Amino acid sequence: MTATTDQISPPGRLAGPDEGITLDELRLASRNHAMPAEAMRADVTPPGLHYVLVHYDIPHVDADTWSLDIGGDVERPLVLDLKALRDMAARTVRVTLECAGNGRAALSPRPISQPWLAGAVGTADWTGIPLRQLLEDAGPAGGAHSVVFTALDHGIERGIEQDYERGLTLEQAMADDVLVAFEMNGAPLPPQHGHPVRLVVPGWYGMAHVKWLSRITVIDHEYDGYQNAVAYRTRARPDEPGEAVTRIHPRALLVPPGFPDFMTRERALRPGVVELEGRAWSGWAPVEQVDVSTDDGTTWQPAELSTSEHRWAWRRFACRWTASPGRYVLRVRATDGSGRQQPADQQWNLGGFANNGDQPVIVHVLEA
Amino acid sequence: MTATTDQISPPGRLAGPDEGITLDELRLASRNHAMPAEAMRADVTPPGLHYVLVHYDIPHVDADTWSLDIGGDVERPLVLDLKALRDMAARTVRVTLECAGNGRAALSPRPISQPWLAGAVGTADWTGIPLRQLLEDAGPAGGAHSVVFTALDHGIERGIEQDYERGLTLEQAMADDVLVAFEMNGAPLPPQHGHPVRLVVPGWYGMAHVKWLSRITVIDHEYDGYQNAVAYRTRARPDEPGEAVTRIHPRALLVPPGFPDFMTRERALRPGVVELEGRAWSGWAPVEQVDVSTDDGTTWQPAELSTSEHRWAWRRFACRWTASPGRYVLRVRATDGSGRQQPADQQWNLGGFANNGDQPVIVHVLEA
Repeated sequence: MTATTDQISPPGRLAGPDEGITLDELRLASRNHAMPAEAMRADVTPPGLHYVLVHYDIPHVDADTWSLDIGGDVERPLVLDLKALRDMAARTVRVTLECAGNGRAALSPRPISQPWLAGAVGTADWTGIPLRQLLEDAGPAGGAHSVVFTALDHGIERGIEQDYERGLTLEQAMADDVLVAFEMNGAPLPPQHGHPVRLVVPGWYGMAHVKWLSRITVIDHEYDGYQNAVAYRTRARPDEPGEAVTRIHPRALLVPPGFPDFMTRERALRPGVVELEGRAWSGWAPVEQVDVSTDDGTTWQPAELSTSEHRWAWRRFACRWTASPGRYVLRVRATDGSGRQQPADQQWNLGGFANNGDQPVIVHVLEA
Repeated sequence: MTATTDQISPPGRLAGPDEGITLDELRLASRNHAMPAEAMRADVTPPGLHYVLVHYDIPHVDADTWSLDIGGDVERPLVLDLKALRDMAARTVRVTLECAGNGRAALSPRPISQPWLAGAVGTADWTGIPLRQLLEDAGPAGGAHSVVFTALDHGIERGIEQDYERGLTLEQAMADDVLVAFEMNGAPLPPQHGHPVRLVVPGWYGMAHVKWLSRITVIDHEYDGYQNAVAYRTRARPDEPGEAVTRIHPRALLVPPGFPDFMTRERALRPGVVELEGRAWSGWAPVEQVDVSTDDGTTWQPAELSTSEHRWAWRRFACRWTASPGRYVLRVRATDGSGRQQPADQQWNLGGFANNGDQPVIVHVLEA
C-alpha cells in the first residue's frame, strides 16, 4: 500500500494521564538537545552547548554555490551569494534564543511534540547584515505588507509537506537588530544552526529565526503559511484560531548548586554559604528583578542583578544562601520592565508553547 | 530530614512491560545528545554534532591553572601543565567514539538509564601526546599492573559519591594510539568533550576516554573502582560479576534517505534510483563488509565499502536502490575482520551495554 504524506504523519495529541514519554518524543529529544543547566554559568554559551531544534533534517548546504534570493513585491529583486553578503557592512548582536516549546514536557496534560523541560535556550554573538538594509536595497513596492523567509530544510509536519517557512510583517522585519547572520561567536555557522546563513530576530522565540535561509519574499498580504497560521499558536481547543506565538516570556534559570546524582539530577551540597547564580531574560523588555526562593516558593528574596550592555541577552543574577542540612526546593522567577512576571503555575495550551512557569531545583544539603 | 548520598540515588531497575520513558530518562536525554543520523554523511562529525555523554556536570576547568599529575608506582612522578603538554611531540588520530549504552532504549525490557537509541556516536580528529610516552617518562615501577585515570567531574551514582575514574591495565594503557588529547578537530577541546585535556583510547567504548583528566596513577593491582567493577559490565542478573565492557562491537548506520515526518521521523521518498549511504565501524578489527536490506532483513545485498587510511574511524558504504512506491523497512549490518557480525536480535544485559542489534529505518516511497 502506498502512503500519502498525511497518512505517515499523525495528528497532534495530548498524552494520557499516566502516559510516559513516548518513543516518538524520545527520538526528537535525542536529536534536539537542550543546554545543560551548568552552562548557564557563561555569558556566551560555549560551542555545541546552545540548544538546537531542527524540524526536519539538517540540510547539507554548499556555501560556495548557495545564494539568497530577495524578491516578490520589490522594485529591485536581488540575488546575493555569501561573498556579496560578507562584503556588506556587518553588525554583531548578542542574543538569547529560546525555543517556543521550552517547558512543554513539564505541562499536564502534556502535548506530544519535542519534549523540552526547561533548557531549550542559549546565548550567542550573531554577526550578519541588518535585514532592513537588504530590504531597503530591494525596495518594497507600495502595497508591501509582509516578508516571507524560506529555508532549505524540507519535511512533513501534521500531514503537510513543506520547506520550513515563516513570515513577519514588514514592520517587524524592518526592526532594529534583525540580522541575516553568517557567523555565530565569530565562526561560520555550524550545520545545525543554519549554515551558511540564517535569520536572527532578537527577542522572539526560535521559530522566527529561520535557519538555512534561501529566499526572502515580500508579499502584499498577511502571511498564512503553516508555521504561522497552523503551528506556533496558543490555543485551548483545536478549532480556535489562537494567538500567534511571538516574543519570549521572562524566565530565570539557576546554575544548579553542588553536584548531581547521575540518574535523578537531584543535587547534593555540603553545608555552608553558597552563591546561587543564574541568568534571566525576556523578549518583551529588559529583566528588572529576579527573586529566589529556597522554600519551594513560600518566601522570596531579590537577587542582585548584573548590568548588561546587551539588550537582547540574558542578565546574570546572584545571591548568597547559608545552606544547613536538609532537603530544599529552590525556585527563581524573573520580572521584566513590561511588568510581566514568571508565573508559579503552568501556562497550558494545546501546542505547549511559552510555558514559562518556574522550575524547581531539588537540593539535599548533607551533614557537614 | 537530612539525606545521605545513597538515599538520594535510586538503585538501577528495568522498565515495566508497558512503562513509557520516564522523566529521569528524559532529563538525561535532553542533556546528553546523540548525533543526528543525517550527520553520518560526513567523515568527520561537524562541531556540536558529535554525541555527548556526561555522567555528572560539565566541570568548569581553568586551562591556565590546570595541571596533570602522573604518580603512584612510578620512578619519576610528573606534574605537567598545558604548555608542557603542548611542547611535546603531538600526534593526531581519527577516532570513531561510541557510548557503551548506545542501543539501550531499544532493549526490551529497557534498563532505566541514559536512553540511547542508535545515535550515540561521532568521529573526530584528536590531537595529543601518546600516553605511552608520558608513562615511559614517569617510569612505571617493577610491580606496576594498572593505570588509573581520574577526572574533575564529581557526582553520585547508584549511591556512591565519586570523581569519575576508570582504570586500564598497563598493557592496554601502553597500546599504540592511546592519547592524552588537548585538541578536537584542530581546536581546543570544548567544555563537554573534556576541556582542557581528555584520554582517547581508540577502539574502546566512550567510558574509557576519561574527560577533564586531572590525575594518572600507576598501581600494583587490578583497578577495582566503581566504573570498572560495578558499572560498565554486562550481567544477566545483579548478583553476578559480569564481563567488562571494553571494545566497540560492529555497527553500521544509514544516512536516512528522503525527508522526515517531524514527529515520527519516518521517511518519505520519491520513486527512482536512490543512493543509500552510511558509515560502519568496529573496535575489534576493521569493517570488511556491510550488507543492506530493503525488506526488513529477509534478503541482504553487499554495499560498496570505501577504503580508509584511518584504522580507528568509521568507513563509508553505499549502494543503489531502485525505489518504487510502497512501505519499506531498511536495515544495514556490519561485519568486521575478527568475524564479528552485527546481529538481528537485541543483545540484552542488565545495564543495557553494547546492544548493536541492527536498527530499522522506515521509508515510504510515494507515488511519482
